[in-house]
Order: sequence, then C-alpha cells, then structure tokens
Amino acid sequence: MARWAPGSGERLQAAALELFAEQGYDQTTVSQIAERAGVTDRTFFRHFADKREALFAGSDRLLAMFTDAVENSPATDPVQLAADALEASAGFFPAERRPWARQRAAVVEAHPALAEREQLKMATLAQAVAAALRGRGVGEPAASLLAHSTTTVFQVAFETWVREGEERAMPEVLHETFAELRATLAPPARA
Amino acid sequence: MARWAPGSGERLQAAALELFAEQGYDQTTVSQIAERAGVTDRTFFRHFADKREALFAGSDRLLAMFTDAVENSPATDPVQLAADALEASAGFFPAERRPWARQRAAVVEAHPALAEREQLKMATLAQAVAAALRGRGVGEPAASLLAHSTTTVFQVAFETWVREGEERAMPEVLHETFAELRATLAPPARA
Repeated sequence: MARWAPGSGERLQAAALELFAEQGYDQTTVSQIAERAGVTDRTFFRHFADKREALFAGSDRLLAMFTDAVENSPATDPVQLAADALEASAGFFPAERRPWARQRAAVVEAHPALAEREQLKMATLAQAVAAALRGRGVGEPAASLLAHSTTTVFQVAFETWVREGEERAMPEVLHETFAELRATLAPPARA
Repeated sequence: MARWAPGSGERLQAAALELFAEQGYDQTTVSQIAERAGVTDRTFFRHFADKREALFAGSDRLLAMFTDAVENSPATDPVQLAADALEASAGFFPAERRPWARQRAAVVEAHPALAEREQLKMATLAQAVAAALRGRGVGEPAASLLAHSTTTVFQVAFETWVREGEERAMPEVLHETFAELRATLAPPARA
C-alpha cells in the first residue's frame, strides 16, 4: 500500500519551484515546500535528500533516456546514435512542461551553486553517453568527441527552448541545433 | 621589494602536487606544502586561498589565453577563431610540463571534489569563449555551439596528451583532435 498519495513527488517539485520563484531559493525551507504540497516533512524526505534535489531529481531519468537510446538504437552510424539519443531526450520536454522548465531555468541561473550543479550534471551526462557509445563499438577519441557534442547540442537546444517567445517544440529545436552544429563545423569543401 | 623569492608560487605548486601524489590529497596540509617549498604558511596564503587552489591557479591564465586569442586574431571566420584559440592554449602545455600535468591529472581524477572543480572550470571556459566569439560578431547559437566545441576539443586533447606513452606535442594533438571532431560530425555528402 502506498504511504503517500501518488504523484506527491511531482507535487513537491512544483511546490518547491513555486516557492523558490516567489520568495527565493535561500529563503525557502523543506517544511514550507511540504506544507505547500500538502504533505509532511517526512514525505518530502522520502522523495528528496534536500531542497536542491527537488530541482535535480529528473536528471537521472534524463541521463537514462540518452544512454538507453544509444544502447537500443537499431542504428550503427555513430552520429545517428547521437541523433537518436537527442531525439529520445525530447520525450522529457513535452510542451506542457515548458512553463515549469522556464521557471526552473531562471531559478538555477540566479544561484551559482545551482548553476554549478547543473553544469556537473551535464559533465556526468557526457561521460555516460561516451561510455554508451564505446559500448556500441565507437572508438576513442570519436566516442568522447561525439558524447560532448551531444551534450553541447542538448544544452544549447534547452536554452533555446526555454527562451521567452520560443514556439518550436523540443524535438524540432534539438534537430535544428544539431544540424547547426554540424554545419558550423563542416570541413571546407575540397576543390 | 619582493617579500618572497621569485618563483615561490611555482615551487609551492610543485610541492603541493608532490605531496598529494606521495601521501594523498586529503592527508596533505598547507603547512606541509609550505615546508616542502621552503616558505612560510603566510607565503602560501599570499599565493593561494587554500590547497585546492594550488592545483587550479593556472586556470584563469589558461582562460585568458583562449579569450585573448579570439579577441586579437586577424581571422574573421568563426571556426578559424576557435582554431586560433586552441593553438594559443597550447602555449600553456610545453613538453617539459607534461610530467607535471600527468601527475596533476591523476590527482584530480582520483578526487571527485577536484574532478568537479575541473569540470566547472571547463564550463566557465565555454562561457568565456562564447562571449568572446559574440564580441567578434558571431551570432547565436553558433557562438555557443562553437565555444562548447572548443572546450570539447581542448578536454579530449588534454586527456590524450597526458596519456602514458603519448609522444605528440600539444599543438599537434589539439590540431588533430579538432580535425577529428569536424570529420566525425561532417554532414553527409550531398548527391
């Protein structure tokens, strides 16, 4: 039997973000978040180690979307594996999530400690994708270069997607950002 | 008049690295580092805020090498600006520095807190290069994509350069790594 209502993790995340945006990250306590979500402090701590984790709890799932896609893609071309991983990650960012993601990005950007945490998650992502690519037979340094590039595309696409006024859906932004990276770095045409 | 011998910063860095490698990072104190370098604790703290900074003090100079190169390059092509920045950074890694860099990389890799610090320095580098590229008229998202790619090439080239048995000089490793990134991401040839 569940000891807490289904979805209390999501409610806690939403409550945390609301409070961070309203009154500031530093000023917000776990008790305030739990109260806003209508649960006890104990329930909060069943879901998250601390208030920071309420913002970063999705990172592990996001990372798994990338690595699962690399591991299970029918493709064999390394660039296609990266493209498949990026496409899979878009499932994490449906249109209805954009307002939440936008607010979260603003909170993270305003706090150096949160921004650092975000950067470290990206570094971890690059390492995990590189390992998955090596598992698919991609050699080094190509696996590392491609994994870092995958993270680059993801980061830049995400920043684009949360920008005020941006209307394109995440799959489209990811696809166009990857194409732009490839075009930018394209070796000069041989005569 | 100088209150400490010229070069004491470098002696302190060398002493710190020796001790970290010999007896472990956590076990090493500032006093031990100062003693090994033949200076007082006070002199240590004139150079570095703490023992960790003895490993990372060069990062600001390295970052400036990248941004100065972008700002002062006669090139106008964005990819050439990135290539010039990478070439300039090689000046930080002469052959005689390789044993030191190799030892430093081993210490950093063995300590998650140091590895995180290194990742954050890379994220800061990417942001600084992106700003420098925008200053040279490169638009977004190309500036961010190219700046992240510059950092990618630098990281992967550095890991290659410090690998045991690697003989190529840093300018060559950087150049070949950049070429490999571009070849890996090259858009398929049009029919």
